[in-house]
Amino acid sequence: MTVPPLKKQRTQPETANARIYEATASAPVNIAVIKYWGKRSEALMLPTNSSLSLTLDQDQLQSKTTVRVVVDADGKENDAALWLNGNREKLSGRVTALLARMRALRVTKEAKDASIPRLASKPLLIASVNNFPTAAGLASSASGLACLAFAVNAALQLELPPADISALARLGSGSACRSLFGGFVAWDMGSKPDGSDSVARQVASETHWPNMCALILVASATQKEMPSTAGMQTTVETSPLLQHRIQAVVPDRMAAIEKAIAARDFDSFAEITMRDSNQFHAVCLDTFPPIFYLNHVSHRVISLITMYNQVKSKSNGRKYTVAYTFDAGPNAVLYLLKEDVAEVLRLVNSYFPNGVDAASSSAVDEYYGLSKQFLKAESKAVEQAEQALEAEVSKGVKKFEESGGLKRIIYTTIGDGPRILGAGNAGEGISLFTEAGVPK
Amino acid sequence: MTVPPLKKQRTQPETANARIYEATASAPVNIAVIKYWGKRSEALMLPTNSSLSLTLDQDQLQSKTTVRVVVDADGKENDAALWLNGNREKLSGRVTALLARMRALRVTKEAKDASIPRLASKPLLIASVNNFPTAAGLASSASGLACLAFAVNAALQLELPPADISALARLGSGSACRSLFGGFVAWDMGSKPDGSDSVARQVASETHWPNMCALILVASATQKEMPSTAGMQTTVETSPLLQHRIQAVVPDRMAAIEKAIAARDFDSFAEITMRDSNQFHAVCLDTFPPIFYLNHVSHRVISLITMYNQVKSKSNGRKYTVAYTFDAGPNAVLYLLKEDVAEVLRLVNSYFPNGVDAASSSAVDEYYGLSKQFLKAESKAVEQAEQALEAEVSKGVKKFEESGGLKRIIYTTIGDGPRILGAGNAGEGISLFTEAGVPK
Repeated sequence: MTVPPLKKQRTQPETANARIYEATASAPVNIAVIKYWGKRSEALMLPTNSSLSLTLDQDQLQSKTTVRVVVDADGKENDAALWLNGNREKLSGRVTALLARMRALRVTKEAKDASIPRLASKPLLIASVNNFPTAAGLASSASGLACLAFAVNAALQLELPPADISALARLGSGSACRSLFGGFVAWDMGSKPDGSDSVARQVASETHWPNMCALILVASATQKEMPSTAGMQTTVETSPLLQHRIQAVVPDRMAAIEKAIAARDFDSFAEITMRDSNQFHAVCLDTFPPIFYLNHVSHRVISLITMYNQVKSKSNGRKYTVAYTFDAGPNAVLYLLKEDVAEVLRLVNSYFPNGVDAASSSAVDEYYGLSKQFLKAESKAVEQAEQALEAEVSKGVKKFEESGGLKRIIYTTIGDGPRILGAGNAGEGISLFTEAGVPK
Repeated sequence: MTVPPLKKQRTQPETANARIYEATASAPVNIAVIKYWGKRSEALMLPTNSSLSLTLDQDQLQSKTTVRVVVDADGKENDAALWLNGNREKLSGRVTALLARMRALRVTKEAKDASIPRLASKPLLIASVNNFPTAAGLASSASGLACLAFAVNAALQLELPPADISALARLGSGSACRSLFGGFVAWDMGSKPDGSDSVARQVASETHWPNMCALILVASATQKEMPSTAGMQTTVETSPLLQHRIQAVVPDRMAAIEKAIAARDFDSFAEITMRDSNQFHAVCLDTFPPIFYLNHVSHRVISLITMYNQVKSKSNGRKYTVAYTFDAGPNAVLYLLKEDVAEVLRLVNSYFPNGVDAASSSAVDEYYGLSKQFLKAESKAVEQAEQALEAEVSKGVKKFEESGGLKRIIYTTIGDGPRILGAGNAGEGISLFTEAGVPK
């Protein structure tokens, strides 16, 4: 190619019996509790420390990608065209590198078996969409790149095991390697120079801790001031504290949180999660010039959860009922148990009144599967108990005084890894391309 | 006593020839560039790391204290009464400890010399005022406790050298020990268990770097959420990063900044200052639960100064023109050279419009010796150059969108250590007490 002009392609007659080599996949978002921040190799995308995340249910949040191999094209090897959320985009260097690696694997496969179709040097059409708007404030690179690697594996019929796809996805976006598995996923930093042991592995499946779930509090934030990639490397270069975190803090935390997950020990899980989020933002602040991802809404969320945990502890005897964590942005992800969701949701909603969605009087967004029924206490008794609790909490934390501090609250659970939604002609209905190769 | 009721005292006839044992002193504020955060001994007030500060000119900001020995009272030993800014206050445990130590020194002195007056076991009247309102957002404990120790030394005629008074002031408030000297002052953490080598020393006098000065940007902040003392010890107990800061970071920074000060090397001074402020706030964030002192105004100040330094560097060839530092609160102290004050002041004022002082349209406060003349560029050429510079800066940092982000801008320079303003009957005019011992 480069990809035939769309008009021309539209008018090309399709050969009725042409087999479409294509796959459509979906992949989940993951939110880390032990944070990845810093690369020891930019080229191989190898991290300075291990990390651990929870995979969120893709029924609520997902990336979806169709990869089509243009078998009947006369294009050049390495050609590929990409549409993100319907817009034609240039391929980044990382995506190009990822595709080159996966095609090379197909080259090897084809060399060994003359009977399989020649796909390795055909152009690729790629379309990817997220079902969550950018306004959701969630990074889409992890789910997007995981989905891409997963779909390419299927479209090129590579038949790689998930761990291998994970290592490939890592080349596109570090944290993408964790989105290849459901449940609780560790990314071991590894020690080999070629990065072959820097892979993600499932620590526990999505059914292991069935009442674990998440509330995502989307702050009505301004644009991120610094992209994660640039910020991360500035931290590696300038923060004296990062080295200590890498060497002396994270290894123990990884071991401890894996143990907490195995034992379904929420108190330990929560404390490590909150401490690690704090420390990630601490090393951002120790970066020169400093990086701020937390804003005043984030600060208030932390204060609210800290106070709520203290107050709640007196009645439920648990040290923590909710754990907060913040990625490279102001949005909070709260991990908590299902039985506590309704109360926590109502508390948060009361502390951050007036979601910015014009149509709703609260920040709760039904689109994301969170029923507004949660907003009303199930009985008068519950309502009174919550009022008493809120009165206690308000002794330590003021309500957010401005309106619209939170834009949206998303409720979701822990979910599985990537899925193949359809392949070849069979996937026609769910493909992101028309038969003629035009993004729908 | 405890201190005779005021009404009765007012009616008591004064003995005309009664000698008043009294001293009135003033002491300066100091703002650290290598931050003190953490105590290794609460009882002896010994820090976990050395620190270094600049003493600000007390012609702008000062604490003033009168200490009177009530020689003709029949009060008990250890009695003392304290008025802060005109209000009768209870003595804190620390002030009580400080007074006990100083009286003990007088006991020793009196035991050696029968000819000197018996002051050690007489009640003390203490009045202290700050010439800067709480609204200035500056900690007054350092200047206040330095002033108290200095005034007690004079009133009890102890004749201690400044280093000894500094060690005593430390018992009242750690950072007070640095306010006993002018100019550039190090507080060496020391290593002896009794704390006798944990003392402040002058690194360079106030005349050493004559064009060094400071702009204090007072953020219109809410109340501090956590007092410094409590926050400090929570950090010591919970932050894994603090230990690394103490052991591996601060010792090198102390050596490097002393060298920078000796050489009047502003670039090095500024970089260390900003990095250390960032790191102090990083360990606050690494505390569990985390401590936030910086707010969104502070963040914007940091971004503004970072961008200004970059832009300015192209024309003046210096790496940094301004250094920011933040204590346990949202207010910025900018250290810079006098020749840059006017431009920086106008830039800051333009970025944070509408100071909250009803009477003024800007945050510049004349009370603190900063002439509003600074607000107008001295020529059309300067004005145009600054507009061009601001246009460059605004490519990287937005103006603060809300009004009243800054409450006040205070301009001051580097100044000398505590001063005795008057003693005994000679100090009558400047005493904070009437002859009858009533606070004026």
